Amino acid sequence: MSKNRLEAFSDGVLAIIITIMVLELKAPHGVELDALKPLLPVFSSYVLSFIYLAIYWNNHHHLLHTVKQVSGGILWANLHLLFWLSLFPVATAWIGENHVAPVPTALYGGVLLMAAIAYYILQCAIIARHGRDSLLAAAIGPDWKGKISPVLYLAAVPLSFVSPWIGHGLYVFVALMWLVPDRRIERVLEQRKE
Amino acid sequence: MSKNRLEAFSDGVLAIIITIMVLELKAPHGVELDALKPLLPVFSSYVLSFIYLAIYWNNHHHLLHTVKQVSGGILWANLHLLFWLSLFPVATAWIGENHVAPVPTALYGGVLLMAAIAYYILQCAIIARHGRDSLLAAAIGPDWKGKISPVLYLAAVPLSFVSPWIGHGLYVFVALMWLVPDRRIERVLEQRKE
Amino acid sequence: MSKNRLEAFSDGVLAIIITIMVLELKAPHGVELDALKPLLPVFSSYVLSFIYLAIYWNNHHHLLHTVKQVSGGILWANLHLLFWLSLFPVATAWIGENHVAPVPTALYGGVLLMAAIAYYILQCAIIARHGRDSLLAAAIGPDWKGKISPVLYLAAVPLSFVSPWIGHGLYVFVALMWLVPDRRIERVLEQRKE
Amino acid sequence: MSKNRLEAFSDGVLAIIITIMVLELKAPHGVELDALKPLLPVFSSYVLSFIYLAIYWNNHHHLLHTVKQVSGGILWANLHLLFWLSLFPVATAWIGENHVAPVPTALYGGVLLMAAIAYYILQCAIIARHGRDSLLAAAIGPDWKGKISPVLYLAAVPLSFVSPWIGHGLYVFVALMWLVPDRRIERVLEQRKE
Repeated sequence: MSKNRLEAFSDGVLAIIITIMVLELKAPHGVELDALKPLLPVFSSYVLSFIYLAIYWNNHHHLLHTVKQVSGGILWANLHLLFWLSLFPVATAWIGENHVAPVPTALYGGVLLMAAIAYYILQCAIIARHGRDSLLAAAIGPDWKGKISPVLYLAAVPLSFVSPWIGHGLYVFVALMWLVPDRRIERVLEQRKE
Repeated sequence: MSKNRLEAFSDGVLAIIITIMVLELKAPHGVELDALKPLLPVFSSYVLSFIYLAIYWNNHHHLLHTVKQVSGGILWANLHLLFWLSLFPVATAWIGENHVAPVPTALYGGVLLMAAIAYYILQCAIIARHGRDSLLAAAIGPDWKGKISPVLYLAAVPLSFVSPWIGHGLYVFVALMWLVPDRRIERVLEQRKE
Repeated sequence: MSKNRLEAFSDGVLAIIITIMVLELKAPHGVELDALKPLLPVFSSYVLSFIYLAIYWNNHHHLLHTVKQVSGGILWANLHLLFWLSLFPVATAWIGENHVAPVPTALYGGVLLMAAIAYYILQCAIIARHGRDSLLAAAIGPDWKGKISPVLYLAAVPLSFVSPWIGHGLYVFVALMWLVPDRRIERVLEQRKE
Repeated sequence: MSKNRLEAFSDGVLAIIITIMVLELKAPHGVELDALKPLLPVFSSYVLSFIYLAIYWNNHHHLLHTVKQVSGGILWANLHLLFWLSLFPVATAWIGENHVAPVPTALYGGVLLMAAIAYYILQCAIIARHGRDSLLAAAIGPDWKGKISPVLYLAAVPLSFVSPWIGHGLYVFVALMWLVPDRRIERVLEQRKE
């Protein structure tokens, strides 16, 4: 059971999700610079979600790189992750239209949280198939980033009701934390070669 | 005649169909939790259709896995299946907007039925090309799931006029029945190895 | 210069074009069977365009199968073909909304004609690269289908002003003519094997 | 770390961007030839953007062809390029609706400029990974096209305020300049073979 189609399908879905979000960026009706102003919150939430989906694609790329056998469980764990990622466009559109409102900000955090949990389940399904001594298990190691992110998303949900800016701040902070590419697997790979 | 492009094209179409459905989930205009309420039926029908398309992708993945030669007949049987799957977004949107109405519920069952028939035709086209002793023919075996599903869809069409809830119940039941991944082909593969 | 990305990109664009057309099929507002009636012309033009794009994908699949070297000229001839195919959704939407009007019917024929010419140019670019004795040149042979189709599209444009039904009739006729899969290349391949 | 998924994901995103733009070409409401007239500026800006994206895909194809190892830096430089390309549909829609207005024309130039810079960064990231003596570094050579394009885009931004036609003229000129396919890498490849 090869992993080629799993990768191809995931790439397809992620590519479409990332590009569908841009449909929210509608051309303004006026022709002056001022006409772009109402697009600013939509644009900034597009940038944030683009970065999140890029991080997911990047980490998914690294994660699948270590997979040798694909089981039914891995297929479904991957589809489950894609489901939550597919909710990014609507969650992004909602915060884009109402940038500083508590409920949309909290819901965005909820979608981020569910996607993080789904990613964790996928990781577990792969480790379960390949064994705890596998390359992946070694590469992930303590995985503090993967552990702290859901905690921060979870905190962002109630804190968005104190002030939506706290929620937004946390989302930007986690994105920046992940933007540093995940070199753990690359590093372990190089160590094994030596 | 390789099967790579057949898989790549099918993956592309399925990935787009699955993501186009999410466009129906429009960001609500209000910013309160109440504003999400009218989205609930749209969301639940999205979940149902996502699961159905995921099942089709999964089974398609398993089915194509056994294919060695691609004929013109297989190409067209596959395109025929993709045609019926491409009607999922509009059928889903219609039940999403009118969850408990008989006609949309019956039409959704009709689309499910046609897709099931198209899948069956594709299976036959592949067996016809590879012979009745082939891996696929052995793996499918009695195939009770594939035989009972169209019967249930067919029953759901008139029963939706008695009560749309019966239709919905049947669709959820069949989805759950298939959610157990199709291990038949995996099992036969492992037996052959031994 | 490998042909993998050329195939992957073409598959992607074709898959998206074919699925974007379905966005025109909007869920009706009523919940009665009557509510589906105004969808009928949109649906039938969707079916026609789906079949045309399926034919193009099928023939493109066969055509590229014979390609060994990809030149800049082939890349651009392929992009040129994709450009005209990308106009199918808007041409389909226009005839879908106004089924029996002369101008939309003629324009649809114009897009079909340009796509046929672009396909012919792509074929020439591939033969130019591979030589007139190549597999492709042998397989295409007299190619009466490829020669008669543009003539019929060209005839359909003025005849649509006599009656749009003549135009529609011609489009359906050409589609049926091509629906018989192009076995020429398969046949030549088998002859060479012997 | 293979480059297959990088290519597949880029192909997917580019294929979707190119096809999403066509959604702006909405079927006119009338059925006369006159009804097509207001579509003309939308259509001509679609053609221009299609050509630009085709050029990017073509050059990306050539650029990635020389890549042997994919690093985290290359992945992110590629995603950065895709981000700016994803803004083509909205920028195209804005000039399509207001063809000769200065601000939309200048903004279109700004998006072209950012995409050109992102492409340059990607080129640098690849050269940094493969060394200055690599095939790519040799193939690019003086790269006058890559150097003059951003200068012309930069000039187009203020000149669009003098007259939007100057901006449009410059964009068409640069597109024509690139339409000649990039044979540099092909040439160097052939030289190496000899």
